[in-house]
Amino acid sequence: MSDDDAPARGATAPQVDAADAHLLERFVQGQQVFNGRLLDVRLDTVAMPDGRHATREYVVHPGAVVVVPILDDGRLVMERQFRYPIGRVVLEFPAGKIDAQEPMLACARRELTEETGYRASQWARAGITHNAMAYSTEIIEIWFARALAPGPRKLDDGELIDLALLTPAELDAAVSSGAVTDAKTQVALLWLQRWHAGAWPLHWFTPP
Amino acid sequence: MSDDDAPARGATAPQVDAADAHLLERFVQGQQVFNGRLLDVRLDTVAMPDGRHATREYVVHPGAVVVVPILDDGRLVMERQFRYPIGRVVLEFPAGKIDAQEPMLACARRELTEETGYRASQWARAGITHNAMAYSTEIIEIWFARALAPGPRKLDDGELIDLALLTPAELDAAVSSGAVTDAKTQVALLWLQRWHAGAWPLHWFTPP
Repeated sequence: MSDDDAPARGATAPQVDAADAHLLERFVQGQQVFNGRLLDVRLDTVAMPDGRHATREYVVHPGAVVVVPILDDGRLVMERQFRYPIGRVVLEFPAGKIDAQEPMLACARRELTEETGYRASQWARAGITHNAMAYSTEIIEIWFARALAPGPRKLDDGELIDLALLTPAELDAAVSSGAVTDAKTQVALLWLQRWHAGAWPLHWFTPP
Repeated sequence: MSDDDAPARGATAPQVDAADAHLLERFVQGQQVFNGRLLDVRLDTVAMPDGRHATREYVVHPGAVVVVPILDDGRLVMERQFRYPIGRVVLEFPAGKIDAQEPMLACARRELTEETGYRASQWARAGITHNAMAYSTEIIEIWFARALAPGPRKLDDGELIDLALLTPAELDAAVSSGAVTDAKTQVALLWLQRWHAGAWPLHWFTPP
């Protein structure tokens, strides 16, 4: 355990309004209580708006991307892999954690190619999701990818992933039935449907 | 730290198919590496399908509910609160963790009344979402509530929550613009829109 001078949160400067002063908690002191290969767990003391102190326990996460890869025929490139904490094989969109200093788009391109073999020439950033904000700094950026060309995969050592191709209607049915329970995949489906409906825009571009 | 004989995952028996044997990881041994007021962090050794060992770090979570409370005029009862790990005031649906042995519906009814004051006479269970399955056992059940009657709130000590009423169109715009980033709220919006479209059914009932 080590004491730190500053909070380890994703946003070092809280993004807040003066009108929200009655809701804010202020960092007092913090320590790292576990530092594993994957998880960095913190225990902070905070000051509540009334001055009383409380503790906050959370995971410091580097951030992640999820990619919605769309084939020319409209089918979606998805993955099936075992997720140990929930003990299930899960159908989900390609995703992965940011490497140190890696831009989000670079991470999205890397993860798509490593896990599926596909390279996309057109990309669009849809939005973000905070998936566990009660106890994690994790932020996931949602990217769309199209104009896909297949190629070889480069899975990490020990990474076991099957590929699956689904139409948007098949994915809709799989979420409705409870067969797809992954939050980032469900949120990505919301973006896909709202984009298809013409309600939410996607600004496509071709990266260099 | 203490050694355990069994995995601490949400699903003690993994829900898997024989056809997925090439993806499965098997519990070998585990220990608790942090036990705070909120977080129970585990470090397990697992056997991969090829027999090699690997480690898995994850949070054991009791599970949670999120409630979509719909007023008679169609507006949604939502909350604004500071979420310390991400340093932001967040607009989200009412939600909370399961108490020990508490049924999901009882938790949904309790959290709705404690945090908003409303009591609902009609309920429907929409589905589930796994929001951080790479490193947490957390499962969130999504419940819908209507026929709402207002009443007094019973916030926990130190719980600071503002209420906000939004139309479904306002929530749709807030997710599209990036003003609402909470995953469980985004997934709940997907359910709301698919139910409104007549695509995904909700089976309403009146609990005793």
